[in-house]
Amino acid sequence: MEALNAITEIGYALDTFYFLISGAFVMWMAAGFAMLEAGLVRSKNTVEILTKNVALFAIASVMYMVVGYNIMYGDSVNSVIPGLSFFLGGDNATADVLAGGDDAPYYSNMSDFFFQVVFVATAMSIVSGAVAERMKLYAFLVFAIVMTGFIYPVQGFWKWGGGFLDEAGFLDFAGSGVVHMAGAAAALAGVLLLGPRKGKYGPNGEVHPIPGANLPLATLGTFILWMGWFGFNGGSELKIANVEEANAVSLIFVNTNMAAAGGVIAALLTARTLFGKSDLTMALNGALAGLVSITAEPLTPTPGLATLIGAIGGVIVVFSIVTLDKMKIDDPVGAISVHGVVGVWGLLAVLLSNGDATLGGQLLGIVAIFAWVFLASLVVWFVIKAIMGLRVTEEEEYEGMDQVDCGMEAYPEFTSGK
Amino acid sequence: MEALNAITEIGYALDTFYFLISGAFVMWMAAGFAMLEAGLVRSKNTVEILTKNVALFAIASVMYMVVGYNIMYGDSVNSVIPGLSFFLGGDNATADVLAGGDDAPYYSNMSDFFFQVVFVATAMSIVSGAVAERMKLYAFLVFAIVMTGFIYPVQGFWKWGGGFLDEAGFLDFAGSGVVHMAGAAAALAGVLLLGPRKGKYGPNGEVHPIPGANLPLATLGTFILWMGWFGFNGGSELKIANVEEANAVSLIFVNTNMAAAGGVIAALLTARTLFGKSDLTMALNGALAGLVSITAEPLTPTPGLATLIGAIGGVIVVFSIVTLDKMKIDDPVGAISVHGVVGVWGLLAVLLSNGDATLGGQLLGIVAIFAWVFLASLVVWFVIKAIMGLRVTEEEEYEGMDQVDCGMEAYPEFTSGK
Amino acid sequence: MEALNAITEIGYALDTFYFLISGAFVMWMAAGFAMLEAGLVRSKNTVEILTKNVALFAIASVMYMVVGYNIMYGDSVNSVIPGLSFFLGGDNATADVLAGGDDAPYYSNMSDFFFQVVFVATAMSIVSGAVAERMKLYAFLVFAIVMTGFIYPVQGFWKWGGGFLDEAGFLDFAGSGVVHMAGAAAALAGVLLLGPRKGKYGPNGEVHPIPGANLPLATLGTFILWMGWFGFNGGSELKIANVEEANAVSLIFVNTNMAAAGGVIAALLTARTLFGKSDLTMALNGALAGLVSITAEPLTPTPGLATLIGAIGGVIVVFSIVTLDKMKIDDPVGAISVHGVVGVWGLLAVLLSNGDATLGGQLLGIVAIFAWVFLASLVVWFVIKAIMGLRVTEEEEYEGMDQVDCGMEAYPEFTSGK
Repeated sequence: MEALNAITEIGYALDTFYFLISGAFVMWMAAGFAMLEAGLVRSKNTVEILTKNVALFAIASVMYMVVGYNIMYGDSVNSVIPGLSFFLGGDNATADVLAGGDDAPYYSNMSDFFFQVVFVATAMSIVSGAVAERMKLYAFLVFAIVMTGFIYPVQGFWKWGGGFLDEAGFLDFAGSGVVHMAGAAAALAGVLLLGPRKGKYGPNGEVHPIPGANLPLATLGTFILWMGWFGFNGGSELKIANVEEANAVSLIFVNTNMAAAGGVIAALLTARTLFGKSDLTMALNGALAGLVSITAEPLTPTPGLATLIGAIGGVIVVFSIVTLDKMKIDDPVGAISVHGVVGVWGLLAVLLSNGDATLGGQLLGIVAIFAWVFLASLVVWFVIKAIMGLRVTEEEEYEGMDQVDCGMEAYPEFTSGK
Repeated sequence: MEALNAITEIGYALDTFYFLISGAFVMWMAAGFAMLEAGLVRSKNTVEILTKNVALFAIASVMYMVVGYNIMYGDSVNSVIPGLSFFLGGDNATADVLAGGDDAPYYSNMSDFFFQVVFVATAMSIVSGAVAERMKLYAFLVFAIVMTGFIYPVQGFWKWGGGFLDEAGFLDFAGSGVVHMAGAAAALAGVLLLGPRKGKYGPNGEVHPIPGANLPLATLGTFILWMGWFGFNGGSELKIANVEEANAVSLIFVNTNMAAAGGVIAALLTARTLFGKSDLTMALNGALAGLVSITAEPLTPTPGLATLIGAIGGVIVVFSIVTLDKMKIDDPVGAISVHGVVGVWGLLAVLLSNGDATLGGQLLGIVAIFAWVFLASLVVWFVIKAIMGLRVTEEEEYEGMDQVDCGMEAYPEFTSGK
Repeated sequence: MEALNAITEIGYALDTFYFLISGAFVMWMAAGFAMLEAGLVRSKNTVEILTKNVALFAIASVMYMVVGYNIMYGDSVNSVIPGLSFFLGGDNATADVLAGGDDAPYYSNMSDFFFQVVFVATAMSIVSGAVAERMKLYAFLVFAIVMTGFIYPVQGFWKWGGGFLDEAGFLDFAGSGVVHMAGAAAALAGVLLLGPRKGKYGPNGEVHPIPGANLPLATLGTFILWMGWFGFNGGSELKIANVEEANAVSLIFVNTNMAAAGGVIAALLTARTLFGKSDLTMALNGALAGLVSITAEPLTPTPGLATLIGAIGGVIVVFSIVTLDKMKIDDPVGAISVHGVVGVWGLLAVLLSNGDATLGGQLLGIVAIFAWVFLASLVVWFVIKAIMGLRVTEEEEYEGMDQVDCGMEAYPEFTSGK
């Protein structure tokens, strides 16, 4: 008996430690997004995007602690309307966190909160790149407050908090939908209201590439995200402290890696076929597309199938980026394609290996999450536009966001003037 | 009985593994400091600061192994004077390490040494940035030998080795004082002897900003430090292998993250209020200030209080940087403010949540550590100045440290001449 | 009994988790190689080397899964000729992986595969830097297919798969030979067929340094590798879940760190003595040389001896780089010296601390691995040369690989023209 208690304690400790390390890996993805985006924009907009990425992580941490966690995991009104029990009493997840208490049976509550809070920041990071190079910094930060405190947690509750999408059998293991497509939907709403960057599209429909200023940074960002994704998917198993769970986490690591590998190869070959060159940015987007593809279901596919799922994601992302440009939807880093379009693919790919998934359930999840996040975001972006404006002036855009918003240059010695 | 032995073994293994991973995260902070500092200096001084950061980590590792660890944790003469038992016999922590032996009861001795040795490097990294752009490379490296082998371990012994500060009830969980303020005190002594960079302060008291050459690097460095801090504070709990300890480590992770988040938001708003712009470097310093603030006590505050403690640190760091510039104390990366001034705040903030802390104990620790490190460093810097000189000539400073000390350029293709 | 089963399960889980985290650290080394190499080449060849590094990791993952893992660990014909049981039936390691099955007794099969697959990528990354700035991208990627699927696994089988080198008592704990020297041997074969970069060597034997474009990146890459090496060596103990294994892993961490530290200091002092300057790139190569030196035996040396072994590696690497340049073997990043020459030193250094090692066994391993990898690679490079050509034209080399192969610039705003 004493031995069994001691074993339970160690299992609790191991699961908690695994959760914390997984969370630290996901936190590290914030650096990945920051480097990816900073590498893919022009030097005159680099300080601003770095500031956004640091600030959004801080905002996400605070807002999710104060409001979002409770919306997602507190007592709910029903399976659609989450609770607001921090106002009304009842089981109050936020209060537990704010008090720092811990009485969870299987692993530490706090380690769960830590793992959840870094996910919110990931969703918000996705928005950051798509609206780059033309949105006012504070317009973005105000949106971040609403997105991380309210919009994200509501649909998170629908699935992971036990709401109606969970009841309807919608499957989304680590968040191709709840995190990635949700982030992309919010980004799309912003991009549509914002319009493309000056000079991106010519009057006769021609697309002018605007090359990123620092591709080693973008590559570093991709490797960081690849690494961090082991925590993102691996930690989403939630437990590791027995043989079955340990095997599951191991398979998730392998599948996550193989999907990324498949995505790189497929995107590289697709881009070479289409453009005649080995396009690095497409290879990077292919890696990320592979990772997004496998995120909805990293456990039931075999590694061979995972490679294939990632590879299809890698093909999709190239065509999606080209198509969005034809539609004059200007997304400087390809976030809507990588996380949104490929996120949908990931949710459908669950059907390939998980017998519990249904087409209806997956489609319901896709529609519900997209509709909610897109429409709620559209309203919020619209209100921000009305009150403080979304976009800098044409002269400011020409001068660069860094001077306008931050008053400093990213590389003052490397670039002369614009 | 057999089962209990096996459980004890696994607990030992889990604690050891947790220590090693925590140590690896702290080692990673060396990369964070290197990138932060390399991003905040001018391109002509970048190779030198990179060389310093790599070399100081190596020197810290060797000196702490050979001398410092034993000063800090070997037999002591009394509670003020540490032992020098590697000369005199007695319990010899260094000999144990050098022999690679391991007979610790709760977790591996070697994992403890690994965790300790990376802390020393952190303290030394703090010095590096403050004396940048004007100090001779080898003057710095000679100081690193004395600091990591002798100055740091003595005050480390006073607190963590069970010396008089520990006996007096001075509380410093993970080292706001022992690591951060100590590093800043050594830096301050060096900066005062060294004087400001040419051109930083005008004849009529005006301050000329000298922008860093690569802000994405500085941002990367900050994210690395933020990530590494989970090991720094989380590992300082020393154990994780039961429910109570696992909960404690989890709360530490959450509090560490929330303090950084609070620091970012507060520093960004403070800087915007003071300067009218969203200053990225202040946001980065705010993150680090939040982290330093919570380092003295990351366990007893609630996450809400941790956010507040970090936020106050974020406000302090902005005012401190401005004030030091008014006093013509030239610290290119703000290290004295971030680690020193905010380190003091962190030590006082222990009083807000830990009932065992006393104002007297905290003040005694602040005064004793600062006085020892500052004065001992001043003497060492002075001796180095007398023997080999601290500062490069005015022409060398104009030409840049990289040509003078290292004979190469950091970005040979991006910058033309100076 | 129930308790003992539960303990066994937790031990299995802890060992698996340790394996997965170690593997994630080794995966992270891919980012380290990418940054190191991107920093040490000229800006006009940076996109191509980034593309290579991302693509080779993807190729290694797929090829090792489909073919290599089974060659290395499946049923073999005899102790020299590995099995091809995925064609012939019999125990089929690849099939197990492809099926995602897991029935290992001590830790998850999949976690083992994950740890192994990232090692292959490391070996391949070594090749990438040495052939930089002149080899066609697709020639390299075709070689990567053969190297990771076939050449590497055969010699991996000889040692780690229980082949004749293992039987002969050849000791190579974590792969100074199997990974590092093997990678360097493949690189050397390529470099000899490829010839030096235009302008590197003058007609009268003079060596013209070609400085790397971004030394902060190279430094970041080195820190990443240093960090990742804790997983590389630490994970190679294979188990951690009891006191003895936990102590072993701890000692490996300490020795790995100390060897790197010794390498930095020795290389820095050697370079300063030879060149009169504190050469950053030599300090970085010194760190890596220290790490390679200790990789063949990170467990039996004391930390003091590990420091010395690393320091000798640091001296060797400086002389080796100078010597190779005298021989007009042009290796832009020093990979052949760091991983090959120092790899041999690491294999011999096993004799200093491990009583089970024999000079004959170590020499046999060095000769067998080098001969196999070098000759097999030579044949493959030769075939690629005959079919598609290895090297870009002189004009293309002048223009830069990035335009030729990838159609984009790494830093479009920082560099004007060539």
